[in-house]
Amino acid sequence: MDIISGQVVKGMPLVKEGDDLASMIMERFALQDNDLVCIASTIVSKSEGRVRGLARYRPGPVALRLAGRLRSDPRFVQAVLEESREILIETPFLLTVTKFGHVGVNAGIDNSNAGPGRILLLPEDPMASAERIRIAMPEDCAVIVTDTCGRPFRCGVAGVAIGWAGIGAVRDWRGEFDLEGRALAITQEAIVDEIAAMANFLMGEGDDGTPVVIFRGLDYPKEGGRLFRPREMDVIRARLGDHRP
Amino acid sequence: MDIISGQVVKGMPLVKEGDDLASMIMERFALQDNDLVCIASTIVSKSEGRVRGLARYRPGPVALRLAGRLRSDPRFVQAVLEESREILIETPFLLTVTKFGHVGVNAGIDNSNAGPGRILLLPEDPMASAERIRIAMPEDCAVIVTDTCGRPFRCGVAGVAIGWAGIGAVRDWRGEFDLEGRALAITQEAIVDEIAAMANFLMGEGDDGTPVVIFRGLDYPKEGGRLFRPREMDVIRARLGDHRP
Repeated sequence: MDIISGQVVKGMPLVKEGDDLASMIMERFALQDNDLVCIASTIVSKSEGRVRGLARYRPGPVALRLAGRLRSDPRFVQAVLEESREILIETPFLLTVTKFGHVGVNAGIDNSNAGPGRILLLPEDPMASAERIRIAMPEDCAVIVTDTCGRPFRCGVAGVAIGWAGIGAVRDWRGEFDLEGRALAITQEAIVDEIAAMANFLMGEGDDGTPVVIFRGLDYPKEGGRLFRPREMDVIRARLGDHRP
Repeated sequence: MDIISGQVVKGMPLVKEGDDLASMIMERFALQDNDLVCIASTIVSKSEGRVRGLARYRPGPVALRLAGRLRSDPRFVQAVLEESREILIETPFLLTVTKFGHVGVNAGIDNSNAGPGRILLLPEDPMASAERIRIAMPEDCAVIVTDTCGRPFRCGVAGVAIGWAGIGAVRDWRGEFDLEGRALAITQEAIVDEIAAMANFLMGEGDDGTPVVIFRGLDYPKEGGRLFRPREMDVIRARLGDHRP
């Protein structure tokens, strides 16, 4: 029939450290082979104990300098630095590359969702998180860990994938360019981002309430491709200059 | 039940200038109120006669200069300039702002899909295109005209919306920043992009074959918001510098 379906998993409880997300999902949804399970990074992080008290951070000189310019809490800036391997933009907001390669404001740290004085870091290794959840499911499913990101040129945030397992990041496709402007013969469609975007839409506002979406009927490759653009392939990143602290 | 569905419209014929897309879709799919009809910009452009022969373009001095640096056909570069109101990047590829405000490589012109010596421009006014198609449908549907775009920081292309009608571009949401780094109290989720992304995934490779996807069961606002980021809100665009020809 070529009809695909998407459905939020109802009744997911609040997630805390140590919770088994795969079981929590399977208790509420009858998974089938080939289902694609999209999970908001917030609950993956919570299950992995990635909540931190700001008080534990000791701002170094870089954090103090940046926090002054940003008028931010230096402990929060220190947390961002500790989750990042590179700073792309220092002001008016911190855009960094996380240790696992994702580019996001404040290294994707959520300071609104973990209680006063507490922050929620992204999963340390979202690819491993996705795989861990996937293999805990007896069905042959794929898993995407989603986050929301702003974008240049376009207003608003949209869902993206930060980790995935059992699905390839990309599908071969047409016309991209390398830094020298050469059109690449074989290129890529970022299907995990496209699916994560729709999942984010279905999760709706306050994704803590419905942080899991299951798609059924999708035709996707099981593996292949990369998602985080390498520096040498990123014309716009190259023009942001070098902001290494 | 809160299950959403998505389906490609099968058997769409090749589209030519003057074709009535709404009728072509309705003949092949029983639309219902609230359905969301996603249509690839390629067929919208073709129906609007946006195929051009390269021979009609007379390259001016800017096109000649840029074409030399880009090693491109100066007539193609002239076409890009004529569709653009601003150049953001001159090399190694042309990133421009189209006259209707969308940022894309080569102003979104497709030089692989219209036959030898011919190019396919984006619709002149995709918002108007979407509305025209929408009002030709007796059901109360929404329409999104989709295109694919590369992105900084992330590999591959993904579907985005370039025109929409009967749906708001965004849904209010949390935490963005203005150019001074102030967090905005009310912000936006770019739902038309999120939906367009999934539509693009479902259209699959060679979107001329299945360029229409219908979603059913989505909960979306009927209006509101903007999608193309204004210059004064775009930190990254500001750092690309001024490349006005």
